Amino acid sequence: MIVLENLSEVYDLIFIFVQLIRKNMYRTHTCGELRIQDTAKQVTLSGWVQRSRDLGGMTFVDLRDRYGITQLVFNMEASADLRREARRLGREFVIQASGIVAERSNKNPKMPTGDIEIIVNTLTVLNESVTPPFTIEAETDGGDELRMKYRYLDLRREPLKNNLLLRHRMAFETRNYFNTHQFIEIETPVLIKSTPEGARDFVVPSRVNPGQFYALPQSPQTFKQLLMVAGYDRYVQIVKCFRDEDLRADRQPEFSQIDCEMSFVQQEDILNMFEGMVRHLFKTIKGIEFSELLPRLTYNQALEQYGNDKPDIRVEMKIHDLTAVAKGKGFGVIDSAPFTGGICAKGCSEYSRKQLDELTEFVKKPQIGAKGLLYVKYGTDSGIKSSVDKFYGAEDLKQWLEPFHAEAGDLLLVLTGERIPTLKALGELRLEMGNRLNLRRKGEFKPLWVLDFPLLEWDNEVKRFFAMHHPFTSPKPEDISLLDTDPGKVRANAYDFVINGVEVGGGSIRIHSETLQKKMFQTLGFTDEDAERQFGFLMQAFRYGAPPHGGIAFGFDRLVSLFAGEESIRDVIAFPKNNAARDVMIDSPAEISAEQLQELSIKVEVRKV
Amino acid sequence: MIVLENLSEVYDLIFIFVQLIRKNMYRTHTCGELRIQDTAKQVTLSGWVQRSRDLGGMTFVDLRDRYGITQLVFNMEASADLRREARRLGREFVIQASGIVAERSNKNPKMPTGDIEIIVNTLTVLNESVTPPFTIEAETDGGDELRMKYRYLDLRREPLKNNLLLRHRMAFETRNYFNTHQFIEIETPVLIKSTPEGARDFVVPSRVNPGQFYALPQSPQTFKQLLMVAGYDRYVQIVKCFRDEDLRADRQPEFSQIDCEMSFVQQEDILNMFEGMVRHLFKTIKGIEFSELLPRLTYNQALEQYGNDKPDIRVEMKIHDLTAVAKGKGFGVIDSAPFTGGICAKGCSEYSRKQLDELTEFVKKPQIGAKGLLYVKYGTDSGIKSSVDKFYGAEDLKQWLEPFHAEAGDLLLVLTGERIPTLKALGELRLEMGNRLNLRRKGEFKPLWVLDFPLLEWDNEVKRFFAMHHPFTSPKPEDISLLDTDPGKVRANAYDFVINGVEVGGGSIRIHSETLQKKMFQTLGFTDEDAERQFGFLMQAFRYGAPPHGGIAFGFDRLVSLFAGEESIRDVIAFPKNNAARDVMIDSPAEISAEQLQELSIKVEVRKV
Repeated sequence: MIVLENLSEVYDLIFIFVQLIRKNMYRTHTCGELRIQDTAKQVTLSGWVQRSRDLGGMTFVDLRDRYGITQLVFNMEASADLRREARRLGREFVIQASGIVAERSNKNPKMPTGDIEIIVNTLTVLNESVTPPFTIEAETDGGDELRMKYRYLDLRREPLKNNLLLRHRMAFETRNYFNTHQFIEIETPVLIKSTPEGARDFVVPSRVNPGQFYALPQSPQTFKQLLMVAGYDRYVQIVKCFRDEDLRADRQPEFSQIDCEMSFVQQEDILNMFEGMVRHLFKTIKGIEFSELLPRLTYNQALEQYGNDKPDIRVEMKIHDLTAVAKGKGFGVIDSAPFTGGICAKGCSEYSRKQLDELTEFVKKPQIGAKGLLYVKYGTDSGIKSSVDKFYGAEDLKQWLEPFHAEAGDLLLVLTGERIPTLKALGELRLEMGNRLNLRRKGEFKPLWVLDFPLLEWDNEVKRFFAMHHPFTSPKPEDISLLDTDPGKVRANAYDFVINGVEVGGGSIRIHSETLQKKMFQTLGFTDEDAERQFGFLMQAFRYGAPPHGGIAFGFDRLVSLFAGEESIRDVIAFPKNNAARDVMIDSPAEISAEQLQELSIKVEVRKV
Repeated sequence: MIVLENLSEVYDLIFIFVQLIRKNMYRTHTCGELRIQDTAKQVTLSGWVQRSRDLGGMTFVDLRDRYGITQLVFNMEASADLRREARRLGREFVIQASGIVAERSNKNPKMPTGDIEIIVNTLTVLNESVTPPFTIEAETDGGDELRMKYRYLDLRREPLKNNLLLRHRMAFETRNYFNTHQFIEIETPVLIKSTPEGARDFVVPSRVNPGQFYALPQSPQTFKQLLMVAGYDRYVQIVKCFRDEDLRADRQPEFSQIDCEMSFVQQEDILNMFEGMVRHLFKTIKGIEFSELLPRLTYNQALEQYGNDKPDIRVEMKIHDLTAVAKGKGFGVIDSAPFTGGICAKGCSEYSRKQLDELTEFVKKPQIGAKGLLYVKYGTDSGIKSSVDKFYGAEDLKQWLEPFHAEAGDLLLVLTGERIPTLKALGELRLEMGNRLNLRRKGEFKPLWVLDFPLLEWDNEVKRFFAMHHPFTSPKPEDISLLDTDPGKVRANAYDFVINGVEVGGGSIRIHSETLQKKMFQTLGFTDEDAERQFGFLMQAFRYGAPPHGGIAFGFDRLVSLFAGEESIRDVIAFPKNNAARDVMIDSPAEISAEQLQELSIKVEVRKV
């Protein structure tokens, strides 16, 4: 006998009963789930009307949800009422349909559900839709602006949906990797303090502390170093960062990074750990395994071989120095230039006048800055022709071809001038040739490390050195003595991670010795007071036993966009802002009320320009 | 024969070689890792000096890192130099020590590494430490203020370290659970738009859009509903939210929530899914399995039985209504009161005068608000004594005892007055008795759902109804007709999740029909223009096919603090702010420079008070 003490127990029992018999009322399956072996099942699906077609006695509706598309069939013979209802369905209506799974007569092998259709016997319109302003298809007729405004509709399109799914999986696998390696994800604060050098900080007035402001972090750098001082030797966080800068190209005022720091490590430990992360992501997400250790180039090598500190090594075409072999033959342009170098374009010896003119135009663009382009054609008949035949005979030009191991049919492209600008111009020319020769293939990934960045950069305007990374970056131990004699030559324990010509990560070993840190501040021209004012707080923490440490941060938006094969990080962010830092969907930023301003103890004062 | 084409290939080979022979220079093991079976191994550890002791010819140092503590031994006989060095080590010095693992003669069974020690042969001081301002021990001598200022030192203490580790594991397992259930984690923006009702929004002036402001989200509510419109039927995010309010009790201006939304679901689906999450966390993190369906109470039941809409059901002691049995015996206090109710404290019949006076004082506190306390003692000798003997005989009082199934030795505590305030006062008294009887045990967890919250709350000041949850919360379908006749009676499809008397989660099924939404706005006294101005943007999105949907958000800080057994959420946040919303460690918020203000087109204008 069951004794029930009171109504509440009856209520409990009813709940348990309901729970047992209850199924989701809205659907038994998703629109991506049913297969031929489900034939004859009674099912219920819910989703959006992708399209509908009337064919003879039947109406076909493609029903879409996040998981796929399933074909619904409304049969005139079975129920004229039902079919009439079906014919009223507009694009993007939200409906629920029940029916029997049937094998399709004309199967669609392109769709996972293409072998079946649902013979509908019940239809419920869950919500109607006005006509969407653009087609919800992979290839849409909507312009950028319109799609940004109706982002919630744009997000229904297959490519964006796949990008957000990819992003989720990448974040998930990133966390998996780090969790396996004993990293702790720790949330650092979003409301922090503006620093004197934080000119691009977003600030937040504090209502309860009138006249005072928080700042949003450009990165959790200080906090992650504090976590090392606190003993959390493996920290990771996928974290939002903020920068109020004039937006160029493909930046966002808020962006996400995979932020990491480790203690009791040297550079090598860090490279291994994060190379491991990248390998894990490529393997789990894209099924790509890199069998060998990823390439590592020093900053100088990258510049010498690729004219770029973030080389796209999908394009092999290395730069070679021709200065020695080209000089002294009476060609003033080369003789007077400190540097002559070239690249070898395989199989391009038959380039036409027009093509060579285009390349000449390319290198003479102001942002490339070369004065002109020289070439040597190593014809398929092994004949050698060049734009400098007047000064160089075939034997001379063979010497030029040698470092490239050029073969008949190749084309040598040569620039001359100041060393660094010429290397960089050759770097751009490499990429241009890579594009022309279709060597920068989507779906091919060539990651590498670039190491040994210079510690300092000379600023000619203010006539002092600046830290290339930040003032806590450690110089290479063997270069420390150069801090006194030739600071510009000092190399840092700093590293970038590059994929296909895009810098996706960067970091450094930090200074943990107070003496070295002081020396560094001196080199940067800081007085003790400057250093104290700007970095005193972190310096103080360092006095309580800072371990040797270093870290790295990866641009998560950029990494996802690379994996997705998208040009813009906007395509992998659910609700991005436009190039004017505006969210046109919600119309933000916007004015706020006078009361709100007064509460915050601030006043708007727009300068006349 | 290996042909190397150029220096870079040699360089590559060297790297591979280095990689193969390279080990972490700083440590071979962590300080929590070595066991008796490692005896005789040569090892290297790095960490912080927890304490050191000189005993006869030896110095013992406890070396600490995130993973544990290992005892180092410096032997005078082996090397006097080494021991001299060891004696100079101060608390919190960062050192690296190499030596041989040896079995300890006096083992420490409380430490996982307590069976061994390291006979050190090499010692390197990696960094010194000035004396920390408080002891880095589980029980520290540092006050709150001091520990907040040196948070990076406080975080070295075992309890805080364990809390952050717990937080990491909970976030990780939360994501695991949702990933398994096909949820997608999608990042919603942090820079959004201030809404007219967003009086407690933090705002962010936009430099590139002078005079305009972003707002920081109090929750991603709008965006998650847009994601449902966009078809992402299972959304989750562990996300930072912000509220600029006067901080009371245990609030933080920035806090984290587990934010979720689902489409094509009814309330029951949501309750099951998120009950599943809580079960998963208890099981994986604390090894606790709840065998039965978690209890569910309606809002009304919670109030009637526990005097509280977030009852702590570790304390069983239910309230019973005694109005009917107590009335009409000539006791004016009870006869004139609309409600009389009580609770039964097991085994408390021997409470002294003093104890009963204390309880009377307790219920008379202004925040409880009862006028007095009545009691009935059901003595261990089965005799009945009460504070109302003048009006009620033993037979009358037996009737009082009946609904409680009271036994000899129990004590009935009775309050009388207006129904709701009296129920609430009894609710407080329950908790007080729970504390006195030690029924609110740490480590015991009693989660439950509270359902069917009222849809609307009447505000007596502005004389209108307000949405108890938010204006998109769906009424129960069977109550919709009451919107016209008796709006205060309408129950919502809204639910809270409660553990041990703390509301840790709450959510609702949303309205997805435009007609019902309009009705709701009317009931709330909104004109069409008001509704359009405040919610137009979301309403517009809903016109393009909004699916039935609903969601929930869990306070992640609060959930972690419950699991950690901590009273304050500050103890589970790495870098919290104090009750004045200040970060005393970095001294934020702070003033910013005049140039920065000018750049942002704002001016500080603090009102004189």
